Amino acid sequence: MKLSIHALLLAASAAIAFPAQAQFAKPEDAVKYRQSAMALMGNHMGRINGQLKSGSPNVAAIQSSAALIETLSKLPFEAFTPGTETVANTKVKPEFFKDTAKVKDLIEKMQAEVSKLAAVAKGGDVKAIQAQFGNVGQACKACHDDYRMK
Amino acid sequence: MKLSIHALLLAASAAIAFPAQAQFAKPEDAVKYRQSAMALMGNHMGRINGQLKSGSPNVAAIQSSAALIETLSKLPFEAFTPGTETVANTKVKPEFFKDTAKVKDLIEKMQAEVSKLAAVAKGGDVKAIQAQFGNVGQACKACHDDYRMK
Repeated sequence: MKLSIHALLLAASAAIAFPAQAQFAKPEDAVKYRQSAMALMGNHMGRINGQLKSGSPNVAAIQSSAALIETLSKLPFEAFTPGTETVANTKVKPEFFKDTAKVKDLIEKMQAEVSKLAAVAKGGDVKAIQAQFGNVGQACKACHDDYRMK
Repeated sequence: MKLSIHALLLAASAAIAFPAQAQFAKPEDAVKYRQSAMALMGNHMGRINGQLKSGSPNVAAIQSSAALIETLSKLPFEAFTPGTETVANTKVKPEFFKDTAKVKDLIEKMQAEVSKLAAVAKGGDVKAIQAQFGNVGQACKACHDDYRMK
């Protein structure tokens, strides 16, 4: 692969802001990454909830939030890497890293419910969205109850 | 809009975890939201940089990160709301909220460069990706230089 001097210079300047890395340079970065994805998911769950509780839900807003949550739901879990369970501000319980099969099931269940929410939202039936939103909430809660510290 | 008791019960249980909200319940939530989106964008910029600096870039990984950055690039800016400039851990300079026209230009430039990166990544030409990655880095830097505290 040959690169022009121009491209190399650009890459060098960009590298100042964005250090080259595989995924996470250190455990703190992994924790920040997964917490960031979770925070955005939580915010958009709250937005959907707000729409559903309003007298006149904005279906387009729900669709947009549901699609974003679907994208984000795939992100956090590669960041639960060994060495991150002792980072100061993590809320994950140590059991999360031991109950591998159960945790995998909970994650896949949540991702499936979230994908279904995005699909149901596209349909625009508010009653159906409401029901599926509840299913997503239950799937989140199932894992948080067992593996997130209070 | 009629809701079944079942749906209402589900919504009530989900509401425990995800308080209904319009966008941000308080300024701290807005800061957390924009910082979360920025953190994920920064992480994936670092991943692309890592791929480009490796001897054999994984183009599929670059495409995935570039598409994600494109989605995320639309999120942070609704969260720069009045009242958030004094939240303790924000790094935004007060000028950000005054230089409205300039800031809007910088944001739109960044989003356009990011969209172009996603498109160029799909093409799979590593040299073109490298050059466009540099353009995105410059667009990020242009705003960070002027409006982000050191």
